[in-house]
Amino acid sequence: MSDWGMQKAALGERLAAGRQHARGKVVPIPSLGAFLTAVIRSGDRVCLEGDNQKQADILASALANLDPQDVHDLHMVQSGVVLPSHLDIFEKGIARRLDFSYSGPQAARIAKMLFGRKIELGAVHTYLELFARYFIDLTPNVALIAAVSADKDGNLYTGPNTEDTPTVVEATSYKNGLVVAQVTEIVDKVPRVDIPGDLVHFVVEAGRPFYVEPLFTRDPAAITETQILTAMLAIKGIYAPYGVRRLNHGIGFNTAAIELLLPTYGEKLGLKGKVCTHFALNPHPTMIPAIESGWVEQIHCFGSEVGMEDYVAARSDVFFTGPDGSLRSNRAFCQTAGLYACDMFIGSTLQIDLEGHSSTVTTSRIAGFGGAPNMGSDPRGRRHPSEPWLKAGAEAAPDADAALRRGRKLVVQIGETFGDRNAPLFVERLDALELARALKLDLAPVMVYSDDVTHIVTEEGIANLLMCRSKDEREQAIRGVAGYTEIGRARDAKLVEQLRQRGVIRRPEDLGIDPLDADRRLLAARSIKDLMLASGGLYRPPSRFRNW
Amino acid sequence: MSDWGMQKAALGERLAAGRQHARGKVVPIPSLGAFLTAVIRSGDRVCLEGDNQKQADILASALANLDPQDVHDLHMVQSGVVLPSHLDIFEKGIARRLDFSYSGPQAARIAKMLFGRKIELGAVHTYLELFARYFIDLTPNVALIAAVSADKDGNLYTGPNTEDTPTVVEATSYKNGLVVAQVTEIVDKVPRVDIPGDLVHFVVEAGRPFYVEPLFTRDPAAITETQILTAMLAIKGIYAPYGVRRLNHGIGFNTAAIELLLPTYGEKLGLKGKVCTHFALNPHPTMIPAIESGWVEQIHCFGSEVGMEDYVAARSDVFFTGPDGSLRSNRAFCQTAGLYACDMFIGSTLQIDLEGHSSTVTTSRIAGFGGAPNMGSDPRGRRHPSEPWLKAGAEAAPDADAALRRGRKLVVQIGETFGDRNAPLFVERLDALELARALKLDLAPVMVYSDDVTHIVTEEGIANLLMCRSKDEREQAIRGVAGYTEIGRARDAKLVEQLRQRGVIRRPEDLGIDPLDADRRLLAARSIKDLMLASGGLYRPPSRFRNW
Repeated sequence: MSDWGMQKAALGERLAAGRQHARGKVVPIPSLGAFLTAVIRSGDRVCLEGDNQKQADILASALANLDPQDVHDLHMVQSGVVLPSHLDIFEKGIARRLDFSYSGPQAARIAKMLFGRKIELGAVHTYLELFARYFIDLTPNVALIAAVSADKDGNLYTGPNTEDTPTVVEATSYKNGLVVAQVTEIVDKVPRVDIPGDLVHFVVEAGRPFYVEPLFTRDPAAITETQILTAMLAIKGIYAPYGVRRLNHGIGFNTAAIELLLPTYGEKLGLKGKVCTHFALNPHPTMIPAIESGWVEQIHCFGSEVGMEDYVAARSDVFFTGPDGSLRSNRAFCQTAGLYACDMFIGSTLQIDLEGHSSTVTTSRIAGFGGAPNMGSDPRGRRHPSEPWLKAGAEAAPDADAALRRGRKLVVQIGETFGDRNAPLFVERLDALELARALKLDLAPVMVYSDDVTHIVTEEGIANLLMCRSKDEREQAIRGVAGYTEIGRARDAKLVEQLRQRGVIRRPEDLGIDPLDADRRLLAARSIKDLMLASGGLYRPPSRFRNW
Repeated sequence: MSDWGMQKAALGERLAAGRQHARGKVVPIPSLGAFLTAVIRSGDRVCLEGDNQKQADILASALANLDPQDVHDLHMVQSGVVLPSHLDIFEKGIARRLDFSYSGPQAARIAKMLFGRKIELGAVHTYLELFARYFIDLTPNVALIAAVSADKDGNLYTGPNTEDTPTVVEATSYKNGLVVAQVTEIVDKVPRVDIPGDLVHFVVEAGRPFYVEPLFTRDPAAITETQILTAMLAIKGIYAPYGVRRLNHGIGFNTAAIELLLPTYGEKLGLKGKVCTHFALNPHPTMIPAIESGWVEQIHCFGSEVGMEDYVAARSDVFFTGPDGSLRSNRAFCQTAGLYACDMFIGSTLQIDLEGHSSTVTTSRIAGFGGAPNMGSDPRGRRHPSEPWLKAGAEAAPDADAALRRGRKLVVQIGETFGDRNAPLFVERLDALELARALKLDLAPVMVYSDDVTHIVTEEGIANLLMCRSKDEREQAIRGVAGYTEIGRARDAKLVEQLRQRGVIRRPEDLGIDPLDADRRLLAARSIKDLMLASGGLYRPPSRFRNW
């Protein structure tokens, strides 16, 4: 064979073409369009950095402004479809195919475009799964990434929002792909090297920071007493008996309530040091009271959170920080930690069916699940025991040979029986199934499959699905905590009562919890301002969360 | 709280103590013992870099030579327990507790020391699982790592054996831990920056390369005709019908035979481009003929392989390489790729029981499984479909609602019915169970659990466990390919014949394979020299594999 080295040659051509629009590695902003046209080839796989938090927004806009006559049929492989420009790229015919993980604010438009055949869908992945494919069959030809600063050699400083950057760069640059970074500014020396300049081919000085969404900020003022009740149930009925020390919390007010109850209700139950000591978690502001009162030993983060930068830097005993003092986040490692090193995932969803499958997809919205399916699944490759894991495994298979019985990850769905706009949490059939049929998908977009869910918590109680011995028991256990929803009202009252006698269903009173005690005064902070005060002024909430 | 910043202060103290034995970041070899005594505290969690390939051997020896009066009760958290010094550290009382993944050559001694209570065992993990815990509850206080070269600022060049280094450094250095690297030499400028100097506190110039084991080199001359037959069965009976393009091969002669049959037998079957296009795999020398004949699009590597450096550098169209031209390996990403981006794992084992559980552990050897349990498990967090995955899922649950039916990873165990020293592959009960009982382990050291295995291949045929509908069918399917072992002879001949009629068991003749065709002439290379010639002289086998 004589034609080896084709990729290096192609990279060389791109570099030469790019250099015509650059000074050294630096591409001036006015040349950005011409530069991208010169280095991107039609049909390329392109990774535009963007997840549920940080966005390479300047590069996204520039890509969306290219002429589709010059650049077309791109295959976008990226964590998040979040900015309008991410979909403009498809609308304009610059890109054709999409493999992604998360699409929060664009969920409705992405669904519309899929129905309109403006996008050819590869698959909706978990973050870690998409990262995995970057190294096998979805390796980018070009990566457009974001950092805080660069030096003239291309060494990058990402600041606290390192997130996906090392993964994207490693997959692209080491496979003869081209890496272009937008940075706020070019400096003489970066505060720390998050990405070695060897791997970064061009840098664009944007003159302003990349966009970051404060997605993990929940205002304690908006937490309801029903949410507080579900949080009390979770703490007393799950965290305590299993002794869950290593865990991940999903996004939402229910888990925010749990975080704010640790130093009050959790303390009263004597759980400090016994639960919630190690997290795979972003720096949630609602974690501040628990951290300040010494509950938490260590937190590894997927990304950062707007306003938490100084607080995290001052709490390097808990968080991972760099030699510059600021947070080092890393989505790939944190997702791996959530998968393999945590004993529990607890989060919310939009719909749960009678088998226990859950999804946040509706017929008109494809949200993508980000990391939930990864963390909300039982990792069968796990080989280290822990008490919560063994206990859950024993509940699922009490009669099995203990030495050959694996443990189980605790996967908990928590929510109110009626959610936003009074939509019932429990449904006969997930909307995701309708969507799969309409779009002819091979798989319905299920967030957590029924065989992975272990517990469902609502204000009516806890259903322990590990202890269900038949499909029928499972259905009645779910109906038994579904409250006044149609699903709940159609329960077999006698069977539900039997399940309760067996401890499969536990009501607040079974746990010695009086729903009247579920009072907002139990929250360790009742407002964003309280969180700021608890942080000693280190937490600086974004202005939209300030009302004082 | 007033006592924040304790970890940074402790790191500061270690740095100050270390600097007394260093010039800048450089520790002279004669001071190494005094230096380690100064920076390591009794009770520390220490990661001594070493996996199944590369070893920080100089640092391991130095650690083993410390005085246990000065340094004791260390908690070693490391991928591999491979060098004698790794166990000397325990023998001498310097370390007490161990969490690890792999212990190839030390398997017998580690078992003896566990029985003798010289080691307090945490758990035997998969690599990825141990990496995950580095970020949650097994974060090292000190990491002792290995690289090829360093500059005076501590920037490290790992060469092709990057392997675990970025993961270990990230977990340690960003959590206020201390990182010490042994390097062959200190240079003015490293060929590429694998680890930024920011994260490396001290460097030791060893004057010779770190130790690397050529673990993935299989001499084609040692491949038997029985192994060739199993390889033919796997290719025609599994690779072809499922169309497996993305996969991982375990270590061993059976999979080496498959690799060497692709350009001959595979070509004849018309499978080029249809199977084996993308791998998570080390640079196996036995892959050379398949790569040279254009079978393989891309390979991402856990580590490197001795002698393959120049070949890999010249085949950057296939392998991941750096700006310096040499391989970039990364165990964490490759394990993630094996877990989430591959449709098949195929490997060998020592024992398979009647349910299909398998293990390489015997009563006197604790081998550790490295990556096999991770890659040999069904990743339930996977959300992207592929044809092999969907087909396997449909075989397992033909009557399920297709939209809610997940696919299945193909997990194949391949071997001869009688292995080394005529030990039967099939057993009533795994030795791992005896060992677990004797050592009072919570879990028996099972490599692949029965519910994850999909196929077993022996010279007698293929058992497709996906198509078994009961425990009894499963047992007979296993007996039905167990040949003349006791397990095989005790089969229910009628049931086995029924399984064969249903295609659950397929014999060579059912696949149109004549065992007499399983001839060594089918191998695309029949010796190490052939491999070298096939590589155009780029592959330079280690001397122990050269017999010409």
